[in-house]
Order: sequence, then structure tokens, then C-alpha cells
Amino acid sequence: MVVRVLRLGHRPTRDKRVTTHLILAARAFGASGVVYSGKRDLVLEETIGDVVSEWGGSFDIGFSDSWRSELREWGASGRVVHLTMYGLPLQDVVSEIRGCRSDLLVVVGGAKVPGEVYDLADWNVAVTSQPHSEVSALAVFLHELFEGRELDGVYGGARLRVVPQARGKRVEDVSGGV
Amino acid sequence: MVVRVLRLGHRPTRDKRVTTHLILAARAFGASGVVYSGKRDLVLEETIGDVVSEWGGSFDIGFSDSWRSELREWGASGRVVHLTMYGLPLQDVVSEIRGCRSDLLVVVGGAKVPGEVYDLADWNVAVTSQPHSEVSALAVFLHELFEGRELDGVYGGARLRVVPQARGKRVEDVSGGV
Repeated sequence: MVVRVLRLGHRPTRDKRVTTHLILAARAFGASGVVYSGKRDLVLEETIGDVVSEWGGSFDIGFSDSWRSELREWGASGRVVHLTMYGLPLQDVVSEIRGCRSDLLVVVGGAKVPGEVYDLADWNVAVTSQPHSEVSALAVFLHELFEGRELDGVYGGARLRVVPQARGKRVEDVSGGV
Repeated sequence: MVVRVLRLGHRPTRDKRVTTHLILAARAFGASGVVYSGKRDLVLEETIGDVVSEWGGSFDIGFSDSWRSELREWGASGRVVHLTMYGLPLQDVVSEIRGCRSDLLVVVGGAKVPGEVYDLADWNVAVTSQPHSEVSALAVFLHELFEGRELDGVYGGARLRVVPQARGKRVEDVSGGV
């Protein structure tokens, strides 16, 4: 199952850090890549590209000037999950989503999500019905979707790798480079 | 088990949104409250207070001008978990943490975490060893700690409550007020 994330309505100045956190969470919890709409942000793309170069894996980031086309194109072959606190509880629908075995686009809102997104999604999913963050919602959704296996993810081609420690920090250079 | 969160090194201008997301995630995933260090931020406290008034529960927010005292005082009776990508994998230590049955302080870094925090913590825990976000790290940590039960959390005294929907939004006013 390939899982991609669609981030709606990115605003480079206001959302810079939250979108960066969101996309890094997408990568760390097993998504294959992200596409974002709103305003193009080359600094964001470079930041994510740098993390992928250093920490490995094949995560990609792309921009789309039409979230509607993205959603419709994806919907032709895969399924769409929209994360919203107004949707059905994660714990009630996650096994159905897991079981569909289609590729999945996970849509994560920005400031104002158009009503059309709720209609185009196959599932509107609430990771709690409380207000919190798209970053935490996405991470917990992916963690449940992959049943925790993403925590053991291996990132090929990394330059850096953390060696887990009870205290302190240890990072190895595993690039094997000159 | 009471779980509180200590957010280190908050900077009101730069961290406003990320700290807000972090604290809302703490609340939504079952923490009892948060204390933050760095610079005092009355707007942040008001934002969180407003969410608690509207959405219920007894979550509290406090400021400390000494994270060191917070950590030491807490360590006298409870246990301390520090979330860091350099720590031991969540999946390897969460059952031990769950089993300790002490109250827990979960420390979440800001920009630069002093080395002393790693030493004062009972556990340094990595929610993946990849770079992502303190918001996603905290949410997935709490979700694992509470084994998903926090998703069914009930927030007493709420004014608003979401009625989960397959499509669209429905929010009820449950204050019973005049």
C-alpha cells in the first residue's frame, strides 16, 4: 500500500514550520511522499530535500496548483482519506481503510478546507474529535494504519543514522563516502 | 497514572503555532496539563484556556522560569520521560514505562536541549530515530502509552461537542446554558 499525503493551502510565511513538521512526520511515519497546494515554497522543498539526502529513503515532495485535480486523479485508481476532527473516529474505521488495500491519499487541511473535500474523500476520519494539530493527527493516523511497523522503518541511502542511546546522542556517518 | 508535559524553551514569536499545536496534542491525547519554560506567553495561555473552556476537561497550563527545578521536583515523586530522536526506541521501552505506574512528566525539547535533560530523565525515548516534530512525537508517545484508550476520552463540562459524521460537520452546543 502506497500512502501519499496532500497538504492543502500552504502559506509560506505563516505555515512554514507547521508544514515542515507535517511533511517530516509524513516521512517518519511511513508515507512515500507529499504533494502540497496553496503557494509554492522553494525553501520548504529544499528543507525536505536536505532531510531526505541526509537521512535516506525515497520520500518525494511536489507542488500542485490544483488540489481538486490531485484529488480527482488519485480517486480514479486509489482511495482518499481526509483527516478532520468532524469525521468518523479513527478507531472505528481504520481496519476498513487498512483492508481496502488500495493506494491511499491522505488529505490534511490548511486554514479553511473547502466542503468539496469532504465529498470527494472516501473517508473523513477524526483522530479524536478534539482540536489539536494536523501534525499529530497525521502521525497517529499513519501509526495506526501501519500498525506500528513504520517505527522499524529502514531508510536506504542515508548519510546519517542515529545509534539509539539510553543517555546522550550518537549519530553515525554511514555514507561510506570519501 | 497522571501525565504532564514539560515544554522547554518556548519563544513566543517563533514558536507560537508549534507550541500551541504541541499543547493541544498533549490535551487531546490524554495528558492532564502542561508546564512550559522559556519566555512567558500570555496569548498562548489564553488560547489554551479558551480551548479548554469550549471543549471541556480539566487540562491546565502553567509557566516555569526554571525547567531544572520542575524536573528535579517531579523526579522526587514521579518519573521523567524525555522525547528525543537520539533515545531508545519507543517500541522497546513503552511497556516498561507503562508498567512503572508512577506519575509521568514528558519532557519535549525546544530549539536546543541542554545535555543535563538527558541525564535527569529516567528514559530518553525516540519516537522513530528520524527527524520530524515534537508534536507528532508527543502524540504517538501518548497514544502508545495509553494504548489508544485516550481516543475515547470524555471531556466533562464542554460547551461544544463534535457529532462524528461520514461527511460534513456537526457540532452540538452541550452547555445547557441560557
